Amino acid sequence: MESIRGVLVDVFHDLPSNSVELTKVPHMATTAGDERTVQYMLKRWQDPDTGLDRAWREEYLVYLSFPDPKTPNKVTVGELGPQGISGGYREKEKEYGPDQKDPDVVQPYAAYAPAGHPKGKLVYANQGKPSDYLHLNQTLDLNGTIAITRYGGEGRAQKAINAAPYGVIGVLVYTDPRDINDGRMSDTNETYPHSWYMPPSGVERGSFNTQYGDLLTPYLAAKDDTYRISMAKITGIPPIPTQPIGFEDAYALICELGGRPAPSEWQGAFNCTYNLGGPGFKPTSTFKESQVQLDIYNRGEIKNSSNVMGVIRGSVEPDRYVIYGNHRDSWVHGAVDPSSGTSVMLEVTRVLGRMVKEGKWRPRRSVIFGSWGAEEFGLIGSAEYTEEYYSKLSERSVAYINVDISVFGKRQKSGNISVFVLLQVKTPGSESTSVYDNWIRYFNRTSPTYGVIPNVGFLTGAGSDYAAFIHFLGITSMDISYTYDRTKTSARIYPAYHTAYDTFDYSSKFIDPGFTSHQTVARTAGNVLMRLADSLLLPFNCSDYAESLEAYLAKALELYTEGLAVHNISIEPLKSAVKTFRSAAASLDQMIRDSDLANETPLKVRGINDQLMLLDRAFLDPTAFPDQYGFRHVIWASSKASEPTFPGLADAYERAALSGLDEDWEEAHRQLSLLSQAILGAAHTLEEVI
Amino acid sequence: MESIRGVLVDVFHDLPSNSVELTKVPHMATTAGDERTVQYMLKRWQDPDTGLDRAWREEYLVYLSFPDPKTPNKVTVGELGPQGISGGYREKEKEYGPDQKDPDVVQPYAAYAPAGHPKGKLVYANQGKPSDYLHLNQTLDLNGTIAITRYGGEGRAQKAINAAPYGVIGVLVYTDPRDINDGRMSDTNETYPHSWYMPPSGVERGSFNTQYGDLLTPYLAAKDDTYRISMAKITGIPPIPTQPIGFEDAYALICELGGRPAPSEWQGAFNCTYNLGGPGFKPTSTFKESQVQLDIYNRGEIKNSSNVMGVIRGSVEPDRYVIYGNHRDSWVHGAVDPSSGTSVMLEVTRVLGRMVKEGKWRPRRSVIFGSWGAEEFGLIGSAEYTEEYYSKLSERSVAYINVDISVFGKRQKSGNISVFVLLQVKTPGSESTSVYDNWIRYFNRTSPTYGVIPNVGFLTGAGSDYAAFIHFLGITSMDISYTYDRTKTSARIYPAYHTAYDTFDYSSKFIDPGFTSHQTVARTAGNVLMRLADSLLLPFNCSDYAESLEAYLAKALELYTEGLAVHNISIEPLKSAVKTFRSAAASLDQMIRDSDLANETPLKVRGINDQLMLLDRAFLDPTAFPDQYGFRHVIWASSKASEPTFPGLADAYERAALSGLDEDWEEAHRQLSLLSQAILGAAHTLEEVI
Repeated sequence: MESIRGVLVDVFHDLPSNSVELTKVPHMATTAGDERTVQYMLKRWQDPDTGLDRAWREEYLVYLSFPDPKTPNKVTVGELGPQGISGGYREKEKEYGPDQKDPDVVQPYAAYAPAGHPKGKLVYANQGKPSDYLHLNQTLDLNGTIAITRYGGEGRAQKAINAAPYGVIGVLVYTDPRDINDGRMSDTNETYPHSWYMPPSGVERGSFNTQYGDLLTPYLAAKDDTYRISMAKITGIPPIPTQPIGFEDAYALICELGGRPAPSEWQGAFNCTYNLGGPGFKPTSTFKESQVQLDIYNRGEIKNSSNVMGVIRGSVEPDRYVIYGNHRDSWVHGAVDPSSGTSVMLEVTRVLGRMVKEGKWRPRRSVIFGSWGAEEFGLIGSAEYTEEYYSKLSERSVAYINVDISVFGKRQKSGNISVFVLLQVKTPGSESTSVYDNWIRYFNRTSPTYGVIPNVGFLTGAGSDYAAFIHFLGITSMDISYTYDRTKTSARIYPAYHTAYDTFDYSSKFIDPGFTSHQTVARTAGNVLMRLADSLLLPFNCSDYAESLEAYLAKALELYTEGLAVHNISIEPLKSAVKTFRSAAASLDQMIRDSDLANETPLKVRGINDQLMLLDRAFLDPTAFPDQYGFRHVIWASSKASEPTFPGLADAYERAALSGLDEDWEEAHRQLSLLSQAILGAAHTLEEVI
Repeated sequence: MESIRGVLVDVFHDLPSNSVELTKVPHMATTAGDERTVQYMLKRWQDPDTGLDRAWREEYLVYLSFPDPKTPNKVTVGELGPQGISGGYREKEKEYGPDQKDPDVVQPYAAYAPAGHPKGKLVYANQGKPSDYLHLNQTLDLNGTIAITRYGGEGRAQKAINAAPYGVIGVLVYTDPRDINDGRMSDTNETYPHSWYMPPSGVERGSFNTQYGDLLTPYLAAKDDTYRISMAKITGIPPIPTQPIGFEDAYALICELGGRPAPSEWQGAFNCTYNLGGPGFKPTSTFKESQVQLDIYNRGEIKNSSNVMGVIRGSVEPDRYVIYGNHRDSWVHGAVDPSSGTSVMLEVTRVLGRMVKEGKWRPRRSVIFGSWGAEEFGLIGSAEYTEEYYSKLSERSVAYINVDISVFGKRQKSGNISVFVLLQVKTPGSESTSVYDNWIRYFNRTSPTYGVIPNVGFLTGAGSDYAAFIHFLGITSMDISYTYDRTKTSARIYPAYHTAYDTFDYSSKFIDPGFTSHQTVARTAGNVLMRLADSLLLPFNCSDYAESLEAYLAKALELYTEGLAVHNISIEPLKSAVKTFRSAAASLDQMIRDSDLANETPLKVRGINDQLMLLDRAFLDPTAFPDQYGFRHVIWASSKASEPTFPGLADAYERAALSGLDEDWEEAHRQLSLLSQAILGAAHTLEEVI
């Protein structure tokens, strides 16, 4: 075992060539480029020398949204037409190399935003948060206006969803240099290809929806004859036309806006004052009284999307699955997103596959690899997979490992993995610093049990394909990546994210020259995978879970005890449930410590592993958030609460505190009860089995 | 093993004394009599010589409904007062012995029917079905009327729920001699104490609700601080006052009714023509223009109800549970319902407990015994238990065995158990006829696989405590009882059901003199339990499941293919799913046959057993019937369909066919898709594991 892990540390050398191969052409979901990557994955996983035991494709008919290549979306100002915006509104990003010239580069667009031709005076709505529109609405009539917003602070679709109730008829969204280029105005000398910064014409594409999975088939795998809701019933997408634009175009619009100056925290990096809009432009602007018109031709299409699946059969417990996945589809060339992760996955499978084919190794448990399709449109491939195989995966999955963007930049490590692995893996560019040392230096927290340790975030969102595994199936999940030092840059994310500049050239020059960080992630993820697949006892610590629950509880007690008491709701059951959980976890830990597991009966060890494996499952409650597709985990579900605590209670409490309505306080009470019951129920699974 | 089973066959001799003890006083849920049975169960299960490893009580605060002992419910006619009905409306059943004299005999009432004092002209509404009110409404204005209905044909609560939309303001319900006493007029010479027939003053009590579990805490175990919905939000209970009465009182009312004669199939066993009511009485009746008044004083109370739990710890797989349960609460003395079952459970635990205490036997798997509280009010104790321990029970339960009323009468056997056991158990009163032979003689079916075999019904309803186990948790369940020959009597159920005559005297004279049938059930249930707890391989046959699915499919194809096709819904995915299931089941069976399990690794056997144990779990879908509490099993859920087929599809199809609405056809399509997906998902759990 240890020697095999030693092997893993040395052999990841194919990462650059994987990346070159994966990023040759744009491979947006269901395009010819996507099919090319399907074939490539299959070839690799079916390789007789380095492939897996078995690999195949699985297809789903899913609802996607595309611009019309023959009639591109347009943004125009008044009668000036496309030339209205400084230098002309760009339908495509500026070409700096052959990659941007590829005819298959998709025009920047807001997937799932409706087609339409709204025309109205422009206002600047900051990040498109509810509070932003509320502020605008105090002095402006937003009816019939177009809102320009910057990325960040609010979900993509939400910027339009928040706008529509005020009568806003169209939304523009751009990335302010403040948020991506460390505040520089970022002219072409300072940005890619001269640095990692976003060029002025760069546009972040994206899926504008708030639910994940195929939007027409919630809870059902999208097959030929599957029931589909009508498109009119889709919720969580922009109700009004929306278009993302580059910041050079945004600059030309925002700096001409009239009206009062926006609040200071709304100001971005442009060398002008961001005004709210009159609505519309300054009287002194060349745009004068012009209105802004969006011509959006997006259309929905049901398309065939593939997952590529591969397995290594376990030798001792083939019916226990460790799942490792990443998506395959990109918006354009996707060198970082997702190919940095796919390269890592291919290296992990190559190295493990060779050991299997040579008869040198076979894991105790089975390993399933998933190369998901159509993630960019809303985690669709992974969500459909979990719907189709719900029972089997629920019953047997030990953990899900997600490595999407494996390297965001040139510095430290984050994720959700056992500390033991990290001590063995060296940090890139240093033979002496382990990932553990580097991690604890850059991102740590103080644990009541362990003192200062590497910090691990919680997977509370739906940012990548782990969502269906943790939130819908309740499978213990982790998301691993190597990221940059946030004290050195304030970039929201690597600046080429979802643009036509996320290419091999960009990645190999500015994200990870020499692919050493890729290698570190491959070593880390490979080690985590092997440990999960091979350990006699699953490497999960239920007392750490208790620590997280106690941290959530402390916050909940601080924030809610008094307010709940006013409405005769006692928070005691929650306190008591967490206490019971802690005590059950401690007993199980003690029992494990007291056991000589290597000499125990196989069924005794299996029993303990089942307790550990199924712990996250015990937090699922399908009645908790019936309106939120795929969110059933009462501890890690998404929440609007600003502070980390139990999501359902937090959201219900805040809603009730705001509305004061009896029915909202009742919902807060219901959330408290179901949460306490889930925690107690989970505790019961850790207690002595009979 | 076999010798231990031999022991089981001979030793059940304490059945009469158990029954005497359990039926000494009325033990309605949460009364002093109930507490007495709690103490008795605890004493028995904690007995040092014949008890279990451990026994304890678990309490829930549940919403019950009682009449007011100080102000009994009344039914009066016009100004004539209580004397209005022949001989006076009886507040209590006639006393034939000391049992009926017990002051703790609860007045007959309709639990959960609201208090109120409606007064109106009487109509006869047959069984209170929707079609019955529809028929009445064609010639009568039902506004402001009181409807008298007979038991049968429709759920208790539903008779009032169906009535209210027509303006009916109160409902009476009685048991017609046609339905319980084989059509005899049943005067006092012919009925109990002279026979098993219901005396003229006998009244069937009951819970008048359509959902099971505590009505104030759906999906939440009813603890001290648990969130409770407001009483106004309870659904599925009578919206109008309702009262059950004896057939002597019903006779006095119905035979005086005016108006047109009721249809022939509405006519009961009274020696008069059943008229519909004018509304009201015949002009020639002494009642004349009188109205009928109900004075109902029922009130809801939150009461502390106990389950008594006991366990025998498994030796090899303590984390696998075989659960055996019955309720403990009765309406009055409950000799048959539930004490015939509780007597059997106590004998099973005494015999197994002694073997455990003497060190002669310990099961491979753990056995959990549950003596449920408040079943009569809606399966409350068992439902709360499954809510509280949802995760633990879902993960580990092999099967649930329910023995409620163990003996309904003097003839054959029905249930849901392995054929192998039955060959060993002799039928009562015969040393040569096995239960198997007797069963196949009286209740058989032709299986495509096996030819003529004993028939086993499906647990599609919520008639006893198996409901939460099969419908909510998806645990394979069985309900065992010995019942009478339905060719010899047309009684809906044994005639003392839920009356003050369901006493030891009745049971030992008319249901099972000598308790030989009780013994047969104890032997059968004990054998089933031991086989489930001890077999290396779980005694489940997944190909038999395929046979049931194929029978349902054949019916669905016959009834729905054409109608669905008209609405462009293909039934092919369902056909294909059942086919895949059959093939996966056949492969697993073959694999089992090809294995020498006794010499296989323990983990291999555990893996197969997990596949078998979790098969029913794969049919759960919490999105299938979101409005029906606790029904998540897409194969065995209740259905209004007249023919046995997939419940969700059947109900949705019938609704759509009736309404013709697009949204109803969409729901039919959704049901078809989720059903197909569940069957396919279940098939995937039977396939080779990787």
